[in-house]
Amino acid sequence: MSWSKIFKSKKVLITGGLGFIGSNLARTLVNAGADVTLIDSLIPSYGGSLYNIGDIKTKVNVFKADIREEKKLPRFIKGQDFLFNLAGQTSHWDSMTDPAADLDINCRAQLSLLEACKKHNPKIRIVFASTRQIYGRPDALPVKETHPLRPVDINGINKVAGESFHLLYAKIHGMSTCALRLTNTIGPGMRIKDARQTFVGVWIRDILKGKRFEVWGGDQKRDFTYIDDAVEAFLLAATYPEAKGAVYNLGGPSVTTLRELAETLVEINGTGGFQIRQFPKERAKIDIGDYYADYSLIKRKLGWRPKTDLRSALKQTLEYYRIELKHYL
Amino acid sequence: MSWSKIFKSKKVLITGGLGFIGSNLARTLVNAGADVTLIDSLIPSYGGSLYNIGDIKTKVNVFKADIREEKKLPRFIKGQDFLFNLAGQTSHWDSMTDPAADLDINCRAQLSLLEACKKHNPKIRIVFASTRQIYGRPDALPVKETHPLRPVDINGINKVAGESFHLLYAKIHGMSTCALRLTNTIGPGMRIKDARQTFVGVWIRDILKGKRFEVWGGDQKRDFTYIDDAVEAFLLAATYPEAKGAVYNLGGPSVTTLRELAETLVEINGTGGFQIRQFPKERAKIDIGDYYADYSLIKRKLGWRPKTDLRSALKQTLEYYRIELKHYL
Repeated sequence: MSWSKIFKSKKVLITGGLGFIGSNLARTLVNAGADVTLIDSLIPSYGGSLYNIGDIKTKVNVFKADIREEKKLPRFIKGQDFLFNLAGQTSHWDSMTDPAADLDINCRAQLSLLEACKKHNPKIRIVFASTRQIYGRPDALPVKETHPLRPVDINGINKVAGESFHLLYAKIHGMSTCALRLTNTIGPGMRIKDARQTFVGVWIRDILKGKRFEVWGGDQKRDFTYIDDAVEAFLLAATYPEAKGAVYNLGGPSVTTLRELAETLVEINGTGGFQIRQFPKERAKIDIGDYYADYSLIKRKLGWRPKTDLRSALKQTLEYYRIELKHYL
Repeated sequence: MSWSKIFKSKKVLITGGLGFIGSNLARTLVNAGADVTLIDSLIPSYGGSLYNIGDIKTKVNVFKADIREEKKLPRFIKGQDFLFNLAGQTSHWDSMTDPAADLDINCRAQLSLLEACKKHNPKIRIVFASTRQIYGRPDALPVKETHPLRPVDINGINKVAGESFHLLYAKIHGMSTCALRLTNTIGPGMRIKDARQTFVGVWIRDILKGKRFEVWGGDQKRDFTYIDDAVEAFLLAATYPEAKGAVYNLGGPSVTTLRELAETLVEINGTGGFQIRQFPKERAKIDIGDYYADYSLIKRKLGWRPKTDLRSALKQTLEYYRIELKHYL
């Protein structure tokens, strides 16, 4: 789809705009001629980095702001046509050690944002970045949107609330909100410094540094969405009338075990290796086991499907970090 | 069961201790020889009233404190054997007009309480007052605990989070928490000034003042738990080992439509009447339709069942307010 027809001269706000997905979304929107504003807290342990928008920094408005700063929200929201609401605390582990911060960002600030939109810009179109984490351990695979929500950690509980608020504001207040439940998203710009966004990040960091990377477990099945496909899903969700008030799973073009993924990564890189490690006991408590999404709903409703196969996704990601590694450590 | 064997000389903290259920629970615990501390915010539009503990006020420790005051929590929690966590914002309607207050009480403060317990008193036994509201509109009746949670208002979303935190702290941190999903609870001490706790309150107020009361809709089916039965459920949930980490529905001994309930109330009172009114449109959006609980799980696990039939429950409640009406207006 030619996004320039839809987003040209449109005003777009992205929270978490310097993060992995936010910055890639910003790039596509800038190229489509949108007037893009990014807000990001730039908390070091989170995903935001000015390096992510190095190539478009003169073409976007950037503000260092934390969505927990409730009083600042109205001025960002006023006048915008679209809000891509991506700011979040993403680490499951950190949510267990600092649950209040996770709540304030993933739950409380989401309600503040929606209230600010309701009051100052009720016609704004909102797409919220939700997560497969809210399903907990799946009853059956692939997981449909109707699967019960049984989060296994603080992050999951707060994300359930954050998503629920978005859908409630559509239902009760008639606002245009849509939630996308993301699975593992990979690609250029993802956090590789640690495993706070995805374990694939540290695998790539280690393999590029010539270190053997660690695979915890190995038999877990997972699906992966390439960043370009995720960006397309956000844009479709923001523009299709059918998406108002809806929640959709994103997914990957294939299902793989972590061991197979590790083998593929080594093969594409041409060198390197990994070692299988038992899952640490404390982490096992909040692990969700096998997961892969049924994305047939968004396929049917919005025509979205993940187009980039896993090998290409890994290849492009590796190529990016081979050059840019030092900026992400 | 003779509660004095279990609770004699035990230290018990009740949040929302001056409210309807909290004060009745306090009375039973005082009679059982427990050392009871009550905290209550005494916010006028909420359920707390010093009048509720008039007869036991010299036998309990009472503090005016709001569970949102995070820093005060540790000193209340230290040294307690039991925590009955009943403080909450209960009005569905108020949660829509002031969602942030509902979130801070029903979600954020719950997490603070649990964190304080984890840090200062991890062995404390906790029973949390949850609500049938979190199910939303039932798929099938009677509603089991496994029914999906699909809250229809802000209050429901925050109560899901509050309950989930309690169960997570049992699962991950090994704490002794239990959640009871209450349906309509009625009896002496309930709020009758307005419908913020239950519509039955205003019916009783109006009939005793000689006014025709309003029944919204009339065909909705509901169940009602008498206060003494609810109190027993809390005490069982605090003491049975099986209850650790569990969630149970409470229910009523019968199912009735609101119209039948209104007719019964008029009949027991001997005089008075009511008028059926169409459900206001704005309120209909957050109404859950028919609801009654399947309470077979708590019956099987803890031996609890609602013993007080609806006629006796209404009769005893009417008798109380016939004398005490002026203190509750």
